[in-house]
Amino acid sequence: MIDQLFTKLESYYEEMVSIRRYLHQHPELSFQEVNTANYIKTFYENLGIEVKGNVGGNGVVAKIYGAKPGKTIALRADFDALPIQEENDVPYKSLNPGVMHACGHDGHTATLLVLAKALHEIKDELEGTYVMIHQHAEEYAPGGAIAMIKDGCLEGVDAIFGTHLWASEPTGKIQYRKGPIMAAADRFEINIQGQGGHGAQPHRTKDAVVIASQLVLNLQQIVSRKVSPVESAVVSVGSFVAENAFNVIADKAKLVGTVRTFNEDVRAFIENEIERIVKGTCLAADCEYTYEFNRGYPAVVNHDEETEFIVECVNSIPSVETVEEAELQMGGEDFAYYLQHVKGTFFFTGARPVGVPVAYPHHHPKFEIDEKALLVAAKALGAAALTYEPQKAEVTL
Amino acid sequence: MIDQLFTKLESYYEEMVSIRRYLHQHPELSFQEVNTANYIKTFYENLGIEVKGNVGGNGVVAKIYGAKPGKTIALRADFDALPIQEENDVPYKSLNPGVMHACGHDGHTATLLVLAKALHEIKDELEGTYVMIHQHAEEYAPGGAIAMIKDGCLEGVDAIFGTHLWASEPTGKIQYRKGPIMAAADRFEINIQGQGGHGAQPHRTKDAVVIASQLVLNLQQIVSRKVSPVESAVVSVGSFVAENAFNVIADKAKLVGTVRTFNEDVRAFIENEIERIVKGTCLAADCEYTYEFNRGYPAVVNHDEETEFIVECVNSIPSVETVEEAELQMGGEDFAYYLQHVKGTFFFTGARPVGVPVAYPHHHPKFEIDEKALLVAAKALGAAALTYEPQKAEVTL
Amino acid sequence: MIDQLFTKLESYYEEMVSIRRYLHQHPELSFQEVNTANYIKTFYENLGIEVKGNVGGNGVVAKIYGAKPGKTIALRADFDALPIQEENDVPYKSLNPGVMHACGHDGHTATLLVLAKALHEIKDELEGTYVMIHQHAEEYAPGGAIAMIKDGCLEGVDAIFGTHLWASEPTGKIQYRKGPIMAAADRFEINIQGQGGHGAQPHRTKDAVVIASQLVLNLQQIVSRKVSPVESAVVSVGSFVAENAFNVIADKAKLVGTVRTFNEDVRAFIENEIERIVKGTCLAADCEYTYEFNRGYPAVVNHDEETEFIVECVNSIPSVETVEEAELQMGGEDFAYYLQHVKGTFFFTGARPVGVPVAYPHHHPKFEIDEKALLVAAKALGAAALTYEPQKAEVTL
Amino acid sequence: MIDQLFTKLESYYEEMVSIRRYLHQHPELSFQEVNTANYIKTFYENLGIEVKGNVGGNGVVAKIYGAKPGKTIALRADFDALPIQEENDVPYKSLNPGVMHACGHDGHTATLLVLAKALHEIKDELEGTYVMIHQHAEEYAPGGAIAMIKDGCLEGVDAIFGTHLWASEPTGKIQYRKGPIMAAADRFEINIQGQGGHGAQPHRTKDAVVIASQLVLNLQQIVSRKVSPVESAVVSVGSFVAENAFNVIADKAKLVGTVRTFNEDVRAFIENEIERIVKGTCLAADCEYTYEFNRGYPAVVNHDEETEFIVECVNSIPSVETVEEAELQMGGEDFAYYLQHVKGTFFFTGARPVGVPVAYPHHHPKFEIDEKALLVAAKALGAAALTYEPQKAEVTL
Repeated sequence: MIDQLFTKLESYYEEMVSIRRYLHQHPELSFQEVNTANYIKTFYENLGIEVKGNVGGNGVVAKIYGAKPGKTIALRADFDALPIQEENDVPYKSLNPGVMHACGHDGHTATLLVLAKALHEIKDELEGTYVMIHQHAEEYAPGGAIAMIKDGCLEGVDAIFGTHLWASEPTGKIQYRKGPIMAAADRFEINIQGQGGHGAQPHRTKDAVVIASQLVLNLQQIVSRKVSPVESAVVSVGSFVAENAFNVIADKAKLVGTVRTFNEDVRAFIENEIERIVKGTCLAADCEYTYEFNRGYPAVVNHDEETEFIVECVNSIPSVETVEEAELQMGGEDFAYYLQHVKGTFFFTGARPVGVPVAYPHHHPKFEIDEKALLVAAKALGAAALTYEPQKAEVTL
Repeated sequence: MIDQLFTKLESYYEEMVSIRRYLHQHPELSFQEVNTANYIKTFYENLGIEVKGNVGGNGVVAKIYGAKPGKTIALRADFDALPIQEENDVPYKSLNPGVMHACGHDGHTATLLVLAKALHEIKDELEGTYVMIHQHAEEYAPGGAIAMIKDGCLEGVDAIFGTHLWASEPTGKIQYRKGPIMAAADRFEINIQGQGGHGAQPHRTKDAVVIASQLVLNLQQIVSRKVSPVESAVVSVGSFVAENAFNVIADKAKLVGTVRTFNEDVRAFIENEIERIVKGTCLAADCEYTYEFNRGYPAVVNHDEETEFIVECVNSIPSVETVEEAELQMGGEDFAYYLQHVKGTFFFTGARPVGVPVAYPHHHPKFEIDEKALLVAAKALGAAALTYEPQKAEVTL
Repeated sequence: MIDQLFTKLESYYEEMVSIRRYLHQHPELSFQEVNTANYIKTFYENLGIEVKGNVGGNGVVAKIYGAKPGKTIALRADFDALPIQEENDVPYKSLNPGVMHACGHDGHTATLLVLAKALHEIKDELEGTYVMIHQHAEEYAPGGAIAMIKDGCLEGVDAIFGTHLWASEPTGKIQYRKGPIMAAADRFEINIQGQGGHGAQPHRTKDAVVIASQLVLNLQQIVSRKVSPVESAVVSVGSFVAENAFNVIADKAKLVGTVRTFNEDVRAFIENEIERIVKGTCLAADCEYTYEFNRGYPAVVNHDEETEFIVECVNSIPSVETVEEAELQMGGEDFAYYLQHVKGTFFFTGARPVGVPVAYPHHHPKFEIDEKALLVAAKALGAAALTYEPQKAEVTL
Repeated sequence: MIDQLFTKLESYYEEMVSIRRYLHQHPELSFQEVNTANYIKTFYENLGIEVKGNVGGNGVVAKIYGAKPGKTIALRADFDALPIQEENDVPYKSLNPGVMHACGHDGHTATLLVLAKALHEIKDELEGTYVMIHQHAEEYAPGGAIAMIKDGCLEGVDAIFGTHLWASEPTGKIQYRKGPIMAAADRFEINIQGQGGHGAQPHRTKDAVVIASQLVLNLQQIVSRKVSPVESAVVSVGSFVAENAFNVIADKAKLVGTVRTFNEDVRAFIENEIERIVKGTCLAADCEYTYEFNRGYPAVVNHDEETEFIVECVNSIPSVETVEEAELQMGGEDFAYYLQHVKGTFFFTGARPVGVPVAYPHHHPKFEIDEKALLVAAKALGAAALTYEPQKAEVTL
């Protein structure tokens, strides 16, 4: 059955590429992906597959029912693009100025559509149900996943699998990781309200530039002193603005930054610790402040058994040459939410363009992927969907 | 002769006020004071006093020759205004939107013009020569003084006197100070060139926000550790700009600030010390920087004997009630340059408006003066001009 | 054969305990373990086992030759004690004031001696050679391992195994980890040479307290900004001494601290980075410094295949109830050196005392272990020795 | 009468020198000056001058009554020595090991004794009363002045004069200053109580070295940002002690330092500001602290009229060549207390040794003075005592 599926996928490779290129030409920003959602929905309707649009927003969910009873497996692909002006000179270059599929979501969608088509064709032999989750708005918090889940996309689902095409690794490599694989990505903003004045009279002021500078240095101690050295965490102040004339003392300074963690306890600890440090620093300076901590996506935390399963599973695919543990990735992904509700795992599918001296990073105006990787991704998700057997044990989260 | 002068000044008080109000209604920005310069020049021409325009720019210099030989004394008044929208509701409110005489230069000019008229009327009894220096562009470095000096306005001058109407002190008070009285006011700009990157990957960056914050704190040590506690100095970073998205690490940060000193050695020391600290901080952070230090006006350093002279001189004026030592003023004044060439002193003439709960500070949109102070200033400068006798000893500067 | 070995070990359990208690009563400090070494050597001599003393110092190496040809496997136990006054009230309490086996090395030695005795008794059935490495001086850098290796203790050895009794985990648990498991533990010392003076005259000094304080804060940025968040590293300044009268400014300050890393690149990077930061900070302060970085033991880096092997191996031992991945340990171990020369792995054998509310940490005056864990350790090492088969592939280090 | 006094003083010059040398050989530490006090008392008794010992401790007060009624003038000399081992090789070198007159108090006492003798001899011509205050314990807070005042030494006194021999200025120079002349000298001690631990586990600690370092830097901002640039103030941390093993994280750090000010408002402000900064820094670090601020002597604040008087007075002494304004001195003096109760002034009498390349500073083991300066000091104090006429106006303090 797997062989049958793989043969079909191989024969549909050209279609996969053509869908991906069409989507690449017609990218849409997060929460604005109306045309893309219609495209996906129409694809399923044309094949006579059950499909539902407007799931939690622009999300689309299709279901393929196997002839025999069995498990319910979800596969997820995201389909939003980024506010980037494409700089690639390709025939399928983005037609929407300032918008680009610079993260591979076009490939994710093409992969899942063609895989669904192939599964649909063999449904008489299939056990269980296959849920195709086409998610909008992965790039922009709060993301589409949380709304799609609320809208029922995981109902009855036993396990979920997802992959990200990964341009830094070669096609033929799959990277997995048990437990945390991608970071929680939060944003904080601190406004220091000192007291301004003439640059020649510091004693009549509360110098917001000095106070905020002190704060930036104090924040370094969270990672250097307060988080266990065997945990990973980042606290970065990306923006420091106190713009004034040269002969003035600043009354305000605004700091904005990000926190990255893999562990909810560490995440909550840092949220509180920043506040304590701000509070103490402002007490020392006798000034006021505001502090906001906006949680982005939580860490993507893979389930152990499903991760062990995917390793075995992809090891058996002939076109997969290497299967290795991924490094922790400091970036965020709202696939995290699915894994808070059902078992599953998220893995990386190597997609480095060949014949280029360097692979541009994700979110770069010259980002590109090796389209051969779509076939690898389709096989990996397909094999997982067909062979996974849910455990009796419940997820306790 | 002094009594005669004072009687004349008193009788011209209304004219002084009316000139001041005319100028107040027609303020002009530094280096753009064409109409004001013409007004001054015409005033002298109408009286038949020798006058020269375009001295070092918009400067005007008039000379009154006493019938008898003697010393040459210069008196200086500045006549530029500020880019401030007046908020006073007075009949003589500024007619130029966004421009205002918010520092009293209108009063300085009226004082000197009327004093010149009175001196001219008693020239037959006068010894020596009286040089009226009407200076443009005091508010904006490099200022008008340096150009007027270059253009010869101090030629043959034995000593110079100047005063500033001072709104924080009551009319009837004169403040003097031997040695430094107003600060050197310099500007510096530091650009940190780190290496930007993703907020989640600090190890691939050189975080310009952290480096510049460290620098701001390190600069505090110049005043706290490096300058003698009995010297006065200020180092203020007024502006800190590194504006970025929250999830980015800054590649650049720009710091702009001011240094105030009263002593050329301390000034030069701080200029070098900032550079040393920037250099060391950037070496520690393995990053690049640029550093500029732009000298503004030097400190106004009064000559001892001329200051002792002015104290005695103004003590003998009946309308002067209080003569006291001024505190050091951290603001700058390009009268400083005249004192680098000839002997002299600069003093403050109290001009606090009466019947108001609070005197607005200089450069405030509601700045106002007590016009009675013009008469005090005219008498003080007039008395100084008449009675000063130059020492034989040369100034060595 | 394994069953036979395990039966023997069980029957010798009382002897293991009695040896351990004898050693516990007679602890000796690192590099001074003459009596302990003699005790070990005599033990082997009495059994007629080939043994050599004074290997790289106080080290002892015994060899058991199987009747059949085969691999050569080394097992290692350390036997030095610590400068701690025991506070346990047990019949076998340390008889040497101020010296205590507070890390379990008494148990390591007892385990290996009895295991050797058991192996010796079945040597006619054994293949290959079994090298018992009794190492002195693990607690005190440079440690005994490096000298014993130089003196040939690893000659002909195919693989080495070692374990540490681990008081925080229960008896019956074994913890393993591929790659780094224990940290490189280095020491650094920084001496700031400023310029002293009177507390009232900072401008005539270079304040070593301020400079060193700045340095302490700057060093925080190594971990917070310069090391990848997915690497583990610690930079701690443990000691800051600038002792002076209150009205003096310090001329000197001495900072001493430690660096912990798991990766040689990170280790070398931090060694250099500290120097760059010291250099830059001292340049900014115009002062002198000295910097020393003394490398302690490198990280213990387990070999992948031998670690996978030990997991399988101990999983098959009935008295082992749990086998799990260890967390990274920030402490150091000179077992690291053996693994730089031959393949092998180092693992933890749970030994938490039962019936006590809390297990005191290693190096505590009340440290104690569950002696049942000696039997577990002996079985684990014995099983590994008997069943390990060397790969053809060479180690490339 | 002044001429008569001066002639007498000149004729007693040898005696003055010999008294000074005797005292130099027999120095006694603050609060232990029993023999010196006896020596002084006996001197007066031998001359039949009214004298009282044990005034506020070891203090001695003698009174000379002029034949005519008039003012009451106090003159003060201190007589304690320092815990310094003399390194001068002179015939009158200190005979008390580790104790030395390294600040000139021997000269002060000799000056006052001989001046008293001379005044006593002309008492029939004198108006008023002359109070000779020989004060113990100037070098060690709380000092002798406060206790002597409490014990009545200023009763009936109209004004007080005192001088300090000043080794950095040449003999023949007198330095005066209106208002503040010497600083308030206070001591503070801060103990940071963090939480210690293993150097490899910062996250389980509150690192007292980091917290205290941060505090040292934060304290820099008091002078750089919080005190007016035209005020003089110093905050120095002289001692930073957190001594530990290299692989430990400090649980405690102790900071001890000094604050120097000239203005009671600034002094009180800094006392509070340090506490605020400590509190805020410890809040940010979630740790405990103790803070003590021990006030030493207040600033010596000279009265304006008495200072103007002394300038005129010493200008008329032939052997005084230069009279100039003193710079602010950051050191302390408990003469400050007398000036809080009665009018008066404290001035410096140049006493630089001649024929030496460098004058060692006060408190140096090689400190020396030019003994000719004793005669200048005696004349200055004598002339002041004879010619001062108290104003009617009351001191309001």
